[in-house]
Amino acid sequence: MTAETDAAALRAVYEPLADSVRRLIDVTIRTEADPATVATAKAKIDCIAAELSKTMMPVSFGVRQAADGQGMAWGNVLIGVRNPVAPPLIIHHDADGSVWTEFELGAAYEGPAGYVHGGVCALILDHVLGATAHKPGRPAVTGTLTTRYLRGTPLGPLRAEARVNRSEGVKTFAYGRIIDSCGQTTVEAEGIFIFPRMR
Amino acid sequence: MTAETDAAALRAVYEPLADSVRRLIDVTIRTEADPATVATAKAKIDCIAAELSKTMMPVSFGVRQAADGQGMAWGNVLIGVRNPVAPPLIIHHDADGSVWTEFELGAAYEGPAGYVHGGVCALILDHVLGATAHKPGRPAVTGTLTTRYLRGTPLGPLRAEARVNRSEGVKTFAYGRIIDSCGQTTVEAEGIFIFPRMR
Repeated sequence: MTAETDAAALRAVYEPLADSVRRLIDVTIRTEADPATVATAKAKIDCIAAELSKTMMPVSFGVRQAADGQGMAWGNVLIGVRNPVAPPLIIHHDADGSVWTEFELGAAYEGPAGYVHGGVCALILDHVLGATAHKPGRPAVTGTLTTRYLRGTPLGPLRAEARVNRSEGVKTFAYGRIIDSCGQTTVEAEGIFIFPRMR
Repeated sequence: MTAETDAAALRAVYEPLADSVRRLIDVTIRTEADPATVATAKAKIDCIAAELSKTMMPVSFGVRQAADGQGMAWGNVLIGVRNPVAPPLIIHHDADGSVWTEFELGAAYEGPAGYVHGGVCALILDHVLGATAHKPGRPAVTGTLTTRYLRGTPLGPLRAEARVNRSEGVKTFAYGRIIDSCGQTTVEAEGIFIFPRMR
């Protein structure tokens, strides 16, 4: 088995588990089951967690190398296919350097009733703007991110997009926004992303 | 049963479930169990989710009123005791108006290997800075948030704190930062929070 098929095989094992736990998160917030049913569910979940934790990485997942040299950020809070907290975002890169993603945010990302937490919008914009600056094998880090809130971002289907405004030396200046299902911009952001000096 | 004890009773039912699912999220990212064990776990989780979703709120949790008039933001992505995505943060208000919280972020919040995703830092700062502006029954909304990244924020125990710099009419200008376990400031932010006009 090559390293590449190995990565695909591992993903086939663990990604469906994360999908199921993602669904369980939503249900945990929204269930109105009676106390006995909830207590039984909790006890079963504890047993499953105990079973799965018998063999476990010592710390976090980290970023691992796949056969093609791309990092497998499977634990990442936004794009990680093994992380039930991640929607997960799928980041698309267009030929002109712009970046976009379409996704759905449910009850787990709520701030004001019925709306996405403003900080979650900042989290997503940080990632999407940063993705305009990254080069293969050379991730950029965020220097400054300025987020402007124009209106509430409703829970449901959303789009985020970003582009590079200009580059100066190690700095990339990016602009991006979140757009709701009616096509309105809800939040926009400008960011400066920096390539750390190579050692 | 008064409304207040009713809220406490409900919390006693649902909070332990969220705690268990929070643990399961971490295990899902880090488990190295074999494919058969993972498949069995996934099937059991699907059954639990099906059982709990037989009676469920139609959309998100929202913000409900407790007996004392305080909102119960139990579904909130950062402070919600029913939301397994939330650490959850416990926000402390000091007499001088400053706000702080101490918490631990594990594998579920990862960006760069071993570090908190920069966007998660923005999410937390948005919330903590906003908390300096809120008045009982009158939440403020974020106008602008500017986040500056000074160094990586390691996964593990962290502190976030914020204070009001000044207020002008409906605007509150706040400053805050995240501090790692060595006492170093990793990220700082300035935010403008606005009280929407009352209708």
